[in-house]
Amino acid sequence: MTTWTDIPRRADPILRQVVEDRWNSLTKPPGSLGRLETLVADIAEMQGKLRPKLDRKAIYVFCGDHGVTAEGVSAWPSEVTAQMVRNFVRGGAAISVLGAALGIELSIIDCGVIGPCVPGAINRKIAEGTRNFALEPAMTLAEVTQAMDNGAALAHECRADLVGLGEMGIGNTASASALVCAFTGWSAEETVGRGAGISDEGLARKRAAVEQSLRLHRESFGDPKSVLAALGGFEIATMTGFILESAKQRRPVMVDGFITTAAVLAARAFAPNVMDYLLFSHCSAEHAHARVLASLAVRPILGLDLRLGEGSGAAMAMNVVHQAHLLYEKMATFAEASVAEAS
Amino acid sequence: MTTWTDIPRRADPILRQVVEDRWNSLTKPPGSLGRLETLVADIAEMQGKLRPKLDRKAIYVFCGDHGVTAEGVSAWPSEVTAQMVRNFVRGGAAISVLGAALGIELSIIDCGVIGPCVPGAINRKIAEGTRNFALEPAMTLAEVTQAMDNGAALAHECRADLVGLGEMGIGNTASASALVCAFTGWSAEETVGRGAGISDEGLARKRAAVEQSLRLHRESFGDPKSVLAALGGFEIATMTGFILESAKQRRPVMVDGFITTAAVLAARAFAPNVMDYLLFSHCSAEHAHARVLASLAVRPILGLDLRLGEGSGAAMAMNVVHQAHLLYEKMATFAEASVAEAS
Repeated sequence: MTTWTDIPRRADPILRQVVEDRWNSLTKPPGSLGRLETLVADIAEMQGKLRPKLDRKAIYVFCGDHGVTAEGVSAWPSEVTAQMVRNFVRGGAAISVLGAALGIELSIIDCGVIGPCVPGAINRKIAEGTRNFALEPAMTLAEVTQAMDNGAALAHECRADLVGLGEMGIGNTASASALVCAFTGWSAEETVGRGAGISDEGLARKRAAVEQSLRLHRESFGDPKSVLAALGGFEIATMTGFILESAKQRRPVMVDGFITTAAVLAARAFAPNVMDYLLFSHCSAEHAHARVLASLAVRPILGLDLRLGEGSGAAMAMNVVHQAHLLYEKMATFAEASVAEAS
Repeated sequence: MTTWTDIPRRADPILRQVVEDRWNSLTKPPGSLGRLETLVADIAEMQGKLRPKLDRKAIYVFCGDHGVTAEGVSAWPSEVTAQMVRNFVRGGAAISVLGAALGIELSIIDCGVIGPCVPGAINRKIAEGTRNFALEPAMTLAEVTQAMDNGAALAHECRADLVGLGEMGIGNTASASALVCAFTGWSAEETVGRGAGISDEGLARKRAAVEQSLRLHRESFGDPKSVLAALGGFEIATMTGFILESAKQRRPVMVDGFITTAAVLAARAFAPNVMDYLLFSHCSAEHAHARVLASLAVRPILGLDLRLGEGSGAAMAMNVVHQAHLLYEKMATFAEASVAEAS
């Protein structure tokens, strides 16, 4: 299995200063583009380039099914996962519309969807859905290793300058919630939310299932691979490998909502330096997302109350980054425009 | 002078319900696109159309100079206003780059810039800068009437489906702060911020100038036109007329930062119904902007710490609206995509 202990820190104060100097040479008050300025500086540091490259942008949508749906934790039947994979490929889903409009390439990865791989999706299927983690480990350690290796290989082959994370999987907010509990020590009560919109009764079942799984698997919480095996999903484990390898390649990764943030917690447990290569797109409306972001001491770019997943928030934030980069590249300097500077 | 007492309320619960029904027919959990869903519903109500139209988007950048700069309230010399007007027209400014990239038409309106009107800008110059409102009224009532009529005429001729507000004018955060104080009753201490980045000494001078102007003109605070004459600017008065007439035409208006929000306070004092046609793009880093937005009980779309003006935040938020509209128009329905719905 790939290791990620050698992800380099990104800190480079000289490079950052040069980027800030360029921003300050452009016709606007210093600092007045706020986060747009810091985003470009962050990406320059991640890529190790004074003029960061953003020609190619891609989103990977990691898809998989979850055995825990047997506990009645979702308002949606598992067959919706495969149906949405087809919808992604055919262009009818939110992420399809956003990807096409914003010039972001989409790769739909079948990491473990029930049924045959949909044509147009990339087949990295480990099995047709995980096992029910309320009763037994969701995956074997070998399955987690395979999924993470798959994700790392996808990141290795990727040629984009900036990648976004997306996901689809009925039941995966339950898995993500359990992972958040395991990595943070928070209770199911504090962590579990309504996901794609479950009823009060469903929410109670979802909390109970997560609580039960935390009791059942507590002994595995020592190392991140065992946590993933106990509580994760094929798409979350694949994403974890993808995040780690992207960071190793110094490629900026745009995180989406709650589920992709759970994969970040896993990736961070493998290699804390991974955090240096992550951008957080938005704070979702899912119950515990704001708290997880706060615990990571990161500030999301957008706050539009999205709770769709698929990479929809990542796509919109990647577009904000795109605009920031355009400003950095195309604005006139004070000298070029013959504009006087502040006293 | 035009009157705006007849701006219609936008409320139309049936139309809104039809828009929500369409959102709920699209392949995503109901409500999961958060503010993107409500933005489209808001615009549908404003336009009175089930399928809101967003083919043409335009930003009007209202420009003018301010006599109060004599008090040392800005780090930048007044000549920068005309220099930036030239930069807008030539394509080197932030709003020029954003407008070109996002398909937003730009109109640069010279409402009262010092010096001759820059070729490429639209000449609606009332005079070459206002008078120093720390010593005397910034404008005459006749000048305010003329400026508001100019703005109303521009809105009347406008053919865009959605318009954004922008502004440029060295000294105009001082004027906007004074207007906010007059319309809200807040003190200069509470309201005045650093604008385009003034020093501590400059900030003290700016506060003192605003405080002095509030004492000097207090008697005029009874009606909004007198307030504008006492403390406003040519670009702010023109914008006020533009906002009011846009609302009368049921055209959604995207408000930018602190200065355009000050114009909103003025417009609201003329006709409270104007609020029904406004969208608030972002919460700027300017000191009192968040508080003004809260006092209006509105929630900005973005929070990127921008404090540039020019309509830069409006442009980015108009692009968010554009994406929301694309999703509304282009996503597949559950029936079209053969995706099962929630139980």
